[in-house]
Amino acid sequence: MSENGIDRRKLLTAGVALGGAALAGRASAAEGDPAILEVKPWNQYLGPGVEAAPYGVPSPYESHVVRRDVAWLTASTESSVNFTPIHELDGIITPNGLCFERHHAGVAEIDPAEHRLMINGLVETPLVFTMADLMRFPRENRIYFLECAANSGMEWRGAQLNGCQYTHGMLHCVMYTGVKLSTLLEEAGLRSSAAWVLPEGADASLMTRSVPLEKAMDDCLVAFRMNGEALRPEQGYPLRLVVPGWEGNMWVKWLRRLEVGDKPWQQREETSKYTDLLTNGKARRFTWVMDVKSVITSPSPQKPVGHGPGPMVISGIAWSGNGRVTRVDVSIDGGRNWRSARIDGPSLSKALHRFYLDIDWDGSELFLQSRAMDEAGVVQPTKDVLRAARGDNSIYHNNGIQTWHIKSDGSAENVEIS
Amino acid sequence: MSENGIDRRKLLTAGVALGGAALAGRASAAEGDPAILEVKPWNQYLGPGVEAAPYGVPSPYESHVVRRDVAWLTASTESSVNFTPIHELDGIITPNGLCFERHHAGVAEIDPAEHRLMINGLVETPLVFTMADLMRFPRENRIYFLECAANSGMEWRGAQLNGCQYTHGMLHCVMYTGVKLSTLLEEAGLRSSAAWVLPEGADASLMTRSVPLEKAMDDCLVAFRMNGEALRPEQGYPLRLVVPGWEGNMWVKWLRRLEVGDKPWQQREETSKYTDLLTNGKARRFTWVMDVKSVITSPSPQKPVGHGPGPMVISGIAWSGNGRVTRVDVSIDGGRNWRSARIDGPSLSKALHRFYLDIDWDGSELFLQSRAMDEAGVVQPTKDVLRAARGDNSIYHNNGIQTWHIKSDGSAENVEIS
Repeated sequence: MSENGIDRRKLLTAGVALGGAALAGRASAAEGDPAILEVKPWNQYLGPGVEAAPYGVPSPYESHVVRRDVAWLTASTESSVNFTPIHELDGIITPNGLCFERHHAGVAEIDPAEHRLMINGLVETPLVFTMADLMRFPRENRIYFLECAANSGMEWRGAQLNGCQYTHGMLHCVMYTGVKLSTLLEEAGLRSSAAWVLPEGADASLMTRSVPLEKAMDDCLVAFRMNGEALRPEQGYPLRLVVPGWEGNMWVKWLRRLEVGDKPWQQREETSKYTDLLTNGKARRFTWVMDVKSVITSPSPQKPVGHGPGPMVISGIAWSGNGRVTRVDVSIDGGRNWRSARIDGPSLSKALHRFYLDIDWDGSELFLQSRAMDEAGVVQPTKDVLRAARGDNSIYHNNGIQTWHIKSDGSAENVEIS
Repeated sequence: MSENGIDRRKLLTAGVALGGAALAGRASAAEGDPAILEVKPWNQYLGPGVEAAPYGVPSPYESHVVRRDVAWLTASTESSVNFTPIHELDGIITPNGLCFERHHAGVAEIDPAEHRLMINGLVETPLVFTMADLMRFPRENRIYFLECAANSGMEWRGAQLNGCQYTHGMLHCVMYTGVKLSTLLEEAGLRSSAAWVLPEGADASLMTRSVPLEKAMDDCLVAFRMNGEALRPEQGYPLRLVVPGWEGNMWVKWLRRLEVGDKPWQQREETSKYTDLLTNGKARRFTWVMDVKSVITSPSPQKPVGHGPGPMVISGIAWSGNGRVTRVDVSIDGGRNWRSARIDGPSLSKALHRFYLDIDWDGSELFLQSRAMDEAGVVQPTKDVLRAARGDNSIYHNNGIQTWHIKSDGSAENVEIS
């Protein structure tokens, strides 16, 4: 294989030469034909006009690009998870229709005219805001990833699920628009004893989590838009809390109340759930930050190579709750040798980063891994290192290095190597 | 009115005080009620589960947020325009379902397995690529605006259409993923006489435009994804040309061929159309760059103020084909006085920029204008300046300053003032 980068002579054969001088072709090239010269139906008809789709939808040929759940994972679909098909996506933006969703009592269907946000507790003046009220405060726009703390959790004890949609798809990344939480808390006026904030959702699960005031006053947003338009119902329409870089469970959806207090509330979702039981019987708690992590999205089990030897694009995503990702290394031999991948596109704090390694595949089997590093200097660990530190009771916060076994036929499998 | 920025005391009354000490309220505050204490239906039921929407859609309460056409503008809906509802959006990303669309023979419904891209003309080796072939080349991800040269064209002779969706909605901004056009041209090998490229679409209109080689080799992309997922059918699925900062007509959709030549082809869309007839009988031609421009999206005729005097968010977008927008000024008195707006969110070359001016409205009528400046030092002109230079025959490239007349009741109207 060539060193990081592409052999230009070989790339040439990714297209089909039309000229008289035939190029030394690979299988994928030889299969081609000058079909461009054929008349296609769509060269000839008048297609649907602008009245067809006031709100557009994907091509019918993309009907396989959907969120998927895992039936055995939860007791009911109202308290379940729908995974983002990250193996089908590129860049760093997740389209709204494909964003990972996790509910505890199904999707609340809220009339925004009836929705209210209350701030109470240790404030000078308890307040209630309508949606219209909130639109009168200064706004911010930020691209952030959201990752569930349970993402990759099913892999804690070993390779389980054959596809990054399931192993890493509790994840999305959009541009949020909203009011800084600090602006609203300052509006109510914090009392001197204020130290924690409890966001509460308006759905039947009444989701609550304790957020330390330092984070609340730093970069949290009370968001009403994602990728420009209103939040989607399953993402908390009309209002959700955005807690950049921290576990998704804290990003309370259908946000209706912010209580200010002087200590954490010890709610179910921060005691029974979202804690990590260690081997000594103690539990890690308040492990809010989503650690630096990455995964190769293509090729992967749901996205096999699809061509023979020659130029291959290895594509993946990396992210860190600590800020920007500064470097991603890729190994094709299960971690023995590493090459620096190319991070392409905007590099924004607490947002997805897209990386590529363009290789010349010789057709032999590969053990693909990626390893991200962030601006805090943290390096993504192996799963073995994680287990050595935390035992094997954990579910949450598995940011270990993922391995895909790429076979000579281009198919791929979720494996673990030690 | 307070100087640029918000009077904190007045903002307080945007929420409803719950405490015993009533705040001096405004109308909008007094109308409020502590409805948060009422039980809402959605606090009690189990909502739809994750099986409900493999590909999600907006809330039914957002059904007014759609693309719209102008029936009298074109002879048929297959050769027409669907405008982005920019008055309903925030941030800089346009969701795919709301992206402006313009067709000349309706939407081609292409099977990607049957689609081919040919490169021919003044190249060493004519090539044909399948979609699978293209996926083997190095990719880029970039957020770019697309603006039709005819955007605001109906306003050339004066204020016509009452809403920025119609005056400025031939515009969208997404993250594109694709292969650099230069990569593909280099793959075919350019002959020494090569100077121009002709992209051609696969729909029945066979759209073609002449692109100078310098631009083709600079930042053009052959794109297959927008906002992470496959291009939408109405945006050229499975392949479109991205010509950053240049008029949207050149961003050929359903791209099937790239011919390399030594001079422009003088096609219909660069002779009869997309030229500007001046008063002296000559026409401006090859005016590809979309000049620096901005518009206030809220408040605007379709998005009235919706509240009484007090804190008001003025929000808008700015963009330039020359690169980054460096500054946006806003006037509330029809251009007599200007204040610097706050540009918020990523500032990327040839992408939308979001700006805000947070004011304390005294309830009197306003004449809102915005004026953008770009990194090339170009300042958005008045419409009078444009007309003085080009007469009033033009349709295309109207980047003049827009005025909204905001009345005391909060309603807004498209007006011109000299």
